[in-house]
Amino acid sequence: MNITFIGPGAIGLFYAARLTEAGARVSLVLRNDLEAVRRNGIRIHGKESDLHISPERIHACASAAEAPRADLVIVTLKTTANRHFQDLVGPALSDHSALLTLQNGLGSDEELARLFGAERLLGGLAFIACTRKAPGVVDCFHPGSITLGEFGRPASPRAQDLASLFDKAGIPTKAIDSLIEARWRKLVWNIPFNGLSIAAGGITTDKLLQDPLLALEVRALMDEVAAAAAAQGLSVPEKFIQSQLDVTPRLGAYKPSSLIDWQAGREVEVEALWGEPLRRARSAGALTPRLALLYGLLKQLCPSEIGSVFFSP
Amino acid sequence: MNITFIGPGAIGLFYAARLTEAGARVSLVLRNDLEAVRRNGIRIHGKESDLHISPERIHACASAAEAPRADLVIVTLKTTANRHFQDLVGPALSDHSALLTLQNGLGSDEELARLFGAERLLGGLAFIACTRKAPGVVDCFHPGSITLGEFGRPASPRAQDLASLFDKAGIPTKAIDSLIEARWRKLVWNIPFNGLSIAAGGITTDKLLQDPLLALEVRALMDEVAAAAAAQGLSVPEKFIQSQLDVTPRLGAYKPSSLIDWQAGREVEVEALWGEPLRRARSAGALTPRLALLYGLLKQLCPSEIGSVFFSP
Repeated sequence: MNITFIGPGAIGLFYAARLTEAGARVSLVLRNDLEAVRRNGIRIHGKESDLHISPERIHACASAAEAPRADLVIVTLKTTANRHFQDLVGPALSDHSALLTLQNGLGSDEELARLFGAERLLGGLAFIACTRKAPGVVDCFHPGSITLGEFGRPASPRAQDLASLFDKAGIPTKAIDSLIEARWRKLVWNIPFNGLSIAAGGITTDKLLQDPLLALEVRALMDEVAAAAAAQGLSVPEKFIQSQLDVTPRLGAYKPSSLIDWQAGREVEVEALWGEPLRRARSAGALTPRLALLYGLLKQLCPSEIGSVFFSP
Repeated sequence: MNITFIGPGAIGLFYAARLTEAGARVSLVLRNDLEAVRRNGIRIHGKESDLHISPERIHACASAAEAPRADLVIVTLKTTANRHFQDLVGPALSDHSALLTLQNGLGSDEELARLFGAERLLGGLAFIACTRKAPGVVDCFHPGSITLGEFGRPASPRAQDLASLFDKAGIPTKAIDSLIEARWRKLVWNIPFNGLSIAAGGITTDKLLQDPLLALEVRALMDEVAAAAAAQGLSVPEKFIQSQLDVTPRLGAYKPSSLIDWQAGREVEVEALWGEPLRRARSAGALTPRLALLYGLLKQLCPSEIGSVFFSP
């Protein structure tokens, strides 16, 4: 099976290494890490074991036009690079290629479907904790799992096959019937924690929850997200919200990915995580005043798109 | 007439100089500026004219116990020093002293009334643009006006007399029938502009209004403040809100006083400007979600009370 990753950062490199190890022929379309991966392959440092994919086992290229036509194309670009979809993703696709986006937040699914056809599209959510330590080198703290689904349709045999593919590569993966519901559920955590950690001046999730006022704001934002989902007919049960609050203290002094980007002076995925959810909440008639204020502040606080940054670091 | 200022900063020094020039015997209770005022008096640099009050015309002291018993005590402390009211204000008062607070936001009136009696208390709002350039030296860009009223009562003959006193000193002053309504109206501007200018990373009012998202948030916060006032039976007409929006672009690259404090690493009056208004809005059953989020962020972003800072700089 030919798999092409578009714009692999830490998460993409990790999955690429695991899928290669499991027997897939993997191509990577990358920029910053291109020379390093061509020279040294991919190195994954895990808590229990390390994994090294030698350069000859992986095909690293600067453009999808250099990669073999893929059975599966996996998009792991930062959403701030979505305006380059046509150039970056287009050349990777043949008529039969399936397309899976593992990008954050809202908006990528619809844009990829519009450009390349809704039928071929699936979306997934990567629950994983890893960072790119150096070009081609990933530290993985928690390999986690994937939840994936068809775009706008219940899980198909194809989605189940894809889940098995990841499963066999050692990444527990579940095919679900509502991708959009899964995306809104993930926002229940991302919107308050990624957002407030920046807006409160750059503080970790434990500090947010130790602040009695901000802990209440976290919960109030979660309720706004759940109400916005409900207004679109999507279910976010109270028990789920509570589980998101319960799990966070265990993460310790955790830096959400947006905070890491912000502190490094990199683009933050403001539109995917706050802008697009706010616009959909409003279209659905949901009241989300805190989200509106948070979005306005983040848009001002975060460096805007730079244009030359295509790939997640 | 004996007038004692407690904790004069730029505004207090300006009014003290004008009242002295108009014939009042003025005492100042101050700390940081004590030696400078004793040595050089007060210097006001205005757009059209300067004013110098020589040291022998003004009584500068470290404690109100050193000042003559006052007919009028004017409190211009930063609200972050309100916990020192008893020590700082108490010794200035005799049985017949009137007490006027020109402090920002909400909470000072009630606390002074509780400590020293509601009958003697008046409150005022200083509309003025001036900064303390050096100890005892004030740059005045716009001398502005004062609005004052009795605490919890309509304007009395005493309030009218006080207005005349300031008027004669060249400060146009109006006695009004609802001090609390005037305070809420001032918050219509202060809550969004002072707050967002900090939370958006330290930007001037023109930048806030040029940001299309934050301009909407300014307006939405103004509406929350007006709704909170209305829930308490106080009137903030739409025309008034609009006037606050209309006047702001004319200020240019204006830094609200809280932003100046924040950028200088000084205490910000978070409780008087956001905390107490939020608590009263909630007590009155008004929904103020944006104010709640803004208050939570500011509480985290602003250095907390330091204890040793009694006087506004």
